[in-house]
Amino acid sequence: MARFSVTYCIGVASETEARARALEIAVEQTVEIPRDIVPAGYIEDEILGQIESVYPCTDTRGGFLTEISYSEDDIGDDFPQLLNIVFGNSSIRTQTRVETMTLSPAITKLLSGPRFGIPGLRERTGVKQGPILMSAIKPVGLSTAELAGLAHQFALGGMDYVKDDHGLANQKTSLFAERVKACTDAIGDANAKTGFATTYVPNITGPSDQIFERAFMAKEMGAGGVMLAPSLVGFDVSRALAANLDFGLPIVSHPTFGGTNVITPTSGFSHRFFYGTLQRLMGVDAVIYPNFGGRFSFSREECLAIVDGCTSDLGGLKPILPAPGGGMTFERVPEMRDAYGDTVMYLIGGALLREKSDLPAACRKLIDAVRTGR
Amino acid sequence: MARFSVTYCIGVASETEARARALEIAVEQTVEIPRDIVPAGYIEDEILGQIESVYPCTDTRGGFLTEISYSEDDIGDDFPQLLNIVFGNSSIRTQTRVETMTLSPAITKLLSGPRFGIPGLRERTGVKQGPILMSAIKPVGLSTAELAGLAHQFALGGMDYVKDDHGLANQKTSLFAERVKACTDAIGDANAKTGFATTYVPNITGPSDQIFERAFMAKEMGAGGVMLAPSLVGFDVSRALAANLDFGLPIVSHPTFGGTNVITPTSGFSHRFFYGTLQRLMGVDAVIYPNFGGRFSFSREECLAIVDGCTSDLGGLKPILPAPGGGMTFERVPEMRDAYGDTVMYLIGGALLREKSDLPAACRKLIDAVRTGR
Repeated sequence: MARFSVTYCIGVASETEARARALEIAVEQTVEIPRDIVPAGYIEDEILGQIESVYPCTDTRGGFLTEISYSEDDIGDDFPQLLNIVFGNSSIRTQTRVETMTLSPAITKLLSGPRFGIPGLRERTGVKQGPILMSAIKPVGLSTAELAGLAHQFALGGMDYVKDDHGLANQKTSLFAERVKACTDAIGDANAKTGFATTYVPNITGPSDQIFERAFMAKEMGAGGVMLAPSLVGFDVSRALAANLDFGLPIVSHPTFGGTNVITPTSGFSHRFFYGTLQRLMGVDAVIYPNFGGRFSFSREECLAIVDGCTSDLGGLKPILPAPGGGMTFERVPEMRDAYGDTVMYLIGGALLREKSDLPAACRKLIDAVRTGR
Repeated sequence: MARFSVTYCIGVASETEARARALEIAVEQTVEIPRDIVPAGYIEDEILGQIESVYPCTDTRGGFLTEISYSEDDIGDDFPQLLNIVFGNSSIRTQTRVETMTLSPAITKLLSGPRFGIPGLRERTGVKQGPILMSAIKPVGLSTAELAGLAHQFALGGMDYVKDDHGLANQKTSLFAERVKACTDAIGDANAKTGFATTYVPNITGPSDQIFERAFMAKEMGAGGVMLAPSLVGFDVSRALAANLDFGLPIVSHPTFGGTNVITPTSGFSHRFFYGTLQRLMGVDAVIYPNFGGRFSFSREECLAIVDGCTSDLGGLKPILPAPGGGMTFERVPEMRDAYGDTVMYLIGGALLREKSDLPAACRKLIDAVRTGR
């Protein structure tokens, strides 16, 4: 069988230690029994992880990189099991971080990837080039009418996408179904006036046995996309929705509850993998993550690595839009243009909500700044 | 509305900084807009997180603990949104760790908790006191017949629970449905011979839109419990299964893919919360985690904190069994008895599989050692 591979950064001092740890990973991620009792033949030759290379890591962390290959036979037919092989029990080891991954034919067959990606998201908006803009209706606690009012104003201002805040669920102040209906209508009204094509993206959460129902309910009510939080609802929900021909809406991924996967440089996943590679495997079309220089600690370099993970070649899966958020302001547009260029979805919430005396005008000013650099 | 609270450890040097960070958490986890534009009235008074206290952390990490209360109105009616409030975007902040949580009436109404817990797991096994034992069939790559053969021998040896390795999914060497049938039959045969009541616990994974179907398929085929990995399949699947009257099987939780939530002392969750409190909220009956002194880095104190999280009062939710695994051997029984006493499910895999010349005898020897301390 063909093999795919994962490259890990191992924080140890010598190559000997690195080789020992690499073997531990190869065993832990597959057979999970002591190396000396791994059955000879198929299991040892095929199922067991194989160390392809061990070499020094050249960045400031030091340590060693090791590429380990796994058999397609390790996976079976489900995506959670692929992730389980990539970083299952080894996620519980310190000084062990997933850096990159290569795919194999069975994986690209199993995972259809993003249905829309950057081309599809652009097509929906009519914005053929330049950055795309998204805002969020919030805070939790506003009534459905108030939230729909905000959606209406964002749409009048020409924002490309308007999403729910990720804290909007099915609270009594704004029940899910009522909100989706009201916001879809409000944005439709605005689009009819302006000629823009603003898309509403509700937050899909809820009990696990109702989550697909809620996604389809949103579609039937006219939503133009959905947002979900993979670290809360599981990593396969977006894949299943993206693969479902009857669904057919873009999917935006929210980073809530998943931060520990990246914030420690010597454990978890590289930013590039977690917010880039993984999202494309999950079938996500745009990925929200905290921008550099905001209230979170991501560096500019980490953010640019995410862009690379979203857009560079990955077994033919579509490129997706990085959507940096978390503290964007008007003043930051120039440095964001400098960092991201045109391949970005600006996510701006609080700074726009501050301009409530004339929200549509504030949106237009922002769009102008983002698209023209003025 | 009633409020519930979460206590966070914040790694800063002064109380002034701690209060500033506490306010950031209170805002981030709820309204997620700048504090100065939070609408007055209901949203500011009720929806916004409230700092209940800030006091120095007395353990070696230093820093400050802050208790923040949230309104039941923040939640709506789904468990993922509760987790989103407990630690959503704040999971992406360094020096911020969830330590403990108090419940409120609406939460204990929303979450029925473990259906079985320790009393139910004991009742199934007939082991009224003393530790309970579980082993695992593995490695991946064995045929269904070979895996069922191992299950048969473990059952002949009198193990209380026999689970799938968490890497057993739906691979061509052992398809899920065939394996569940074969192992259920093999264990049933052994039980008929021995008079023991060994229970088979298959691993439930798979596409998100088939996971409930697989759990029910396992039940229909005679499995006596199920295992799942919440960090892969999402945190609400076990809750939904535990709450479903038609399901009615114990649930074992596996820690794969979730390690980054605990392994950095200054971020994520305390061991007590993640492997104790959270599991009970999820409706899990036994939680697998890496034992101290094995191949993972958990300390004895962290493991005892997990036991406390599994068993101490939590709004009337049943206590659950801690199931330490990951490198248990015969030699370690005395120190494990010393640490865990009777309230524990010993998970032993590789060390038993080493004794393949007479696996049932090795099981009996282990059970004898565990239950009598010899």
